[in-house]
Amino acid sequence: MFTVRTRSAGSRARTGTLHLAHGDVQTPAFVPLATKGAVKTLEPRDVAALGYELILGNTFHLLLAPGPELVAQMGGLHEFMRWDRAIITDSGGFQVFSMGHGGVADEIKGRGRGRPGGPAAPRTGSILAIEEEGVRFRSYVDGGERFLAPEGSMAVQAALGSDIALVFDECTPFHVSREYTERSMERTHRWLERCLRWHETRGPAGQVVYGIVQGGVERDLRAISAAAVASSACDGIAIGGSLGQDKAQMHEVVGWTTEELERLAPDRPRHLLGIGDVDDLIAGVELGIDTFDCALPTRLGRHGVALVPAPDSGWRVDLVKGRWRSAPEPILDGCGCPACAGGFSRAYLHYLLRARELTGLRLVTLHNLWFIARLMEDLRAGVDAGRLPEVVAALRGGAAPGMDARRNGPMDAERSEAPNPH
Amino acid sequence: MFTVRTRSAGSRARTGTLHLAHGDVQTPAFVPLATKGAVKTLEPRDVAALGYELILGNTFHLLLAPGPELVAQMGGLHEFMRWDRAIITDSGGFQVFSMGHGGVADEIKGRGRGRPGGPAAPRTGSILAIEEEGVRFRSYVDGGERFLAPEGSMAVQAALGSDIALVFDECTPFHVSREYTERSMERTHRWLERCLRWHETRGPAGQVVYGIVQGGVERDLRAISAAAVASSACDGIAIGGSLGQDKAQMHEVVGWTTEELERLAPDRPRHLLGIGDVDDLIAGVELGIDTFDCALPTRLGRHGVALVPAPDSGWRVDLVKGRWRSAPEPILDGCGCPACAGGFSRAYLHYLLRARELTGLRLVTLHNLWFIARLMEDLRAGVDAGRLPEVVAALRGGAAPGMDARRNGPMDAERSEAPNPH
Repeated sequence: MFTVRTRSAGSRARTGTLHLAHGDVQTPAFVPLATKGAVKTLEPRDVAALGYELILGNTFHLLLAPGPELVAQMGGLHEFMRWDRAIITDSGGFQVFSMGHGGVADEIKGRGRGRPGGPAAPRTGSILAIEEEGVRFRSYVDGGERFLAPEGSMAVQAALGSDIALVFDECTPFHVSREYTERSMERTHRWLERCLRWHETRGPAGQVVYGIVQGGVERDLRAISAAAVASSACDGIAIGGSLGQDKAQMHEVVGWTTEELERLAPDRPRHLLGIGDVDDLIAGVELGIDTFDCALPTRLGRHGVALVPAPDSGWRVDLVKGRWRSAPEPILDGCGCPACAGGFSRAYLHYLLRARELTGLRLVTLHNLWFIARLMEDLRAGVDAGRLPEVVAALRGGAAPGMDARRNGPMDAERSEAPNPH
Repeated sequence: MFTVRTRSAGSRARTGTLHLAHGDVQTPAFVPLATKGAVKTLEPRDVAALGYELILGNTFHLLLAPGPELVAQMGGLHEFMRWDRAIITDSGGFQVFSMGHGGVADEIKGRGRGRPGGPAAPRTGSILAIEEEGVRFRSYVDGGERFLAPEGSMAVQAALGSDIALVFDECTPFHVSREYTERSMERTHRWLERCLRWHETRGPAGQVVYGIVQGGVERDLRAISAAAVASSACDGIAIGGSLGQDKAQMHEVVGWTTEELERLAPDRPRHLLGIGDVDDLIAGVELGIDTFDCALPTRLGRHGVALVPAPDSGWRVDLVKGRWRSAPEPILDGCGCPACAGGFSRAYLHYLLRARELTGLRLVTLHNLWFIARLMEDLRAGVDAGRLPEVVAALRGGAAPGMDARRNGPMDAERSEAPNPH
């Protein structure tokens, strides 16, 4: 289900194609979140027009509402939400555990970043028990007690009918002991086998399964986990759990893991869970990651923070700040997104955001997803052309994605020379 | 600036074209609200794609934020919000007075309708004094004392650069005495003259001015007011103030007024302020109204209430209700709007609305504005074909707008046989 097209000479970076039940996905790719069955503020036609071929639905949220039975009755998640391209569903583990470990959703990813909109996971609800069999927790929707086990997670994902299902894992946080991390990892490996066993006989046709590497920030545990997952029958491999307390450590942990995976399972696709900062996407591609999902670009958009080619400012500009009150310029000169090409000024967006107009949230969301889509296109083009280092150097130097002179120009959404002509 | 194309034989209904600085407007037309410089949840390109040629911006809200100076500095409201078709601005009077009269925004229109999202006017802020010179009130944005007079309202509308400015009037509520209504009306007439005097020398090129008929539910006062406004130099005439306590009385008051206007100013366009229920639009067209503005279709959409051809249910269906939880059908079979033609089920919309997903608000808003746009097209086609009674009878009998067999079919937004080929 995965073909590698080009392997970069100087790094583990590679381009390829995921062949999924609902179409191909050019990699490396960013995967926008449709947490509750919609990419927030957008319609599916908008997401497709931005060039995305794969989105992520959250098993945990969709389990609680509207429930997998209803989604299945409506023809599956694709039909329910009217998205005819590929969908990956997470296992629900991240939400269950980020909730249970006491609002440490961000700490799990270990980055202490400024959170624009609070943690991704709901603050209400709580975990009741983590047992070998599965996890008991309280629903944030109705307060009722719920139980989620590996088989149950796979059953939900089967009902949703996603193209890629993720196995149920414990998303081990950063603040626990090495001993806990190891025990948790070993349980995750046993859950992996249970997930694959369930899926072997009951998984829907066309659905592939990704295992998840845990092991926290311990190099030996990451190697053990990578080996365990690589030795399983899973179709692809995700990297989860705590990735450290800062970006440097995160890149190190990801590097350890992809180094093992490159050796043990070089032809299986690799997904990095919950990472979506611009610099992390660039680093992740260099480290051999094929797909990334993250709430960040869309969540930042809803909080008025736009992505721009400004590495020193974290690739961000906060349009809510008073300094943009009368700024006539667009978010990014020459950008082809509906907000910039539509001629909306920073002043207008600032005003809409302050006035809490939903149109403003939509416009900045469209810009951010456009920015990330063009970034990934540039990285793919760089790998294919054997010039990834130059592309990365340009991006890190402040070059705007999607404005490479070799292309058809920033206003042209159909790029004839790009490898992925969406 | 207004040419009448067809006058209906059996009623005061008529079709025509408003020739405005930013393009023509086919009438009768509904005017969506861009209260704070955006049609809520939509981009300008969406509103244009639905077929609208005229939208309404609120002087009161734009005065408080971002302020007319900023809008003017950014090139005017069209350039600021990136809408290149026509804009009408109200005078700010409605908001000032509906606020001042103690949350009677709905009572002013006298309809006691079930309010889906509270009154259109803000509940905070308050009126401090109504004087001959103008009105002092408190800003809901910063709590500061503000003053608005006829000249000030015209100056704000000049800065905004709208195609149609409305004179500053006192929007007289329903619960006051006849004596108050009469004194208020007379002051509104004096304010009309002050507005026209200011505009004569300082109004921007291309901007036309509508006077406003007041007089409450008193037939003689409406006649006096219609005569006063008709005898002024205004370019068009709006009908404002209290229109009674139910739909029957509203239609009666509008009928008295258009009867006078038909006699006194037959060639000037007539706008009915704040009316947008489907049955009221139909009745209004029969009574000779050329344009209507109202928050209703968009506000209902944001509250999950969709417009449908069900006269007995007030042309509405509440998608938030539990009965739609697993309904596979679209809002309206055969409807060509992005929500229905996009294949989104009532079940999905119900789920999105319950989950407070912004995508849901957008989809129902798109449907409602599509429904109203097609309704107005049908009414225009009926007048032009000399068969308005049949068209109205069909609509009142539950026929879906925009699905006339003479047309190209509901999925086709480009209608070659329609009089207004958007």
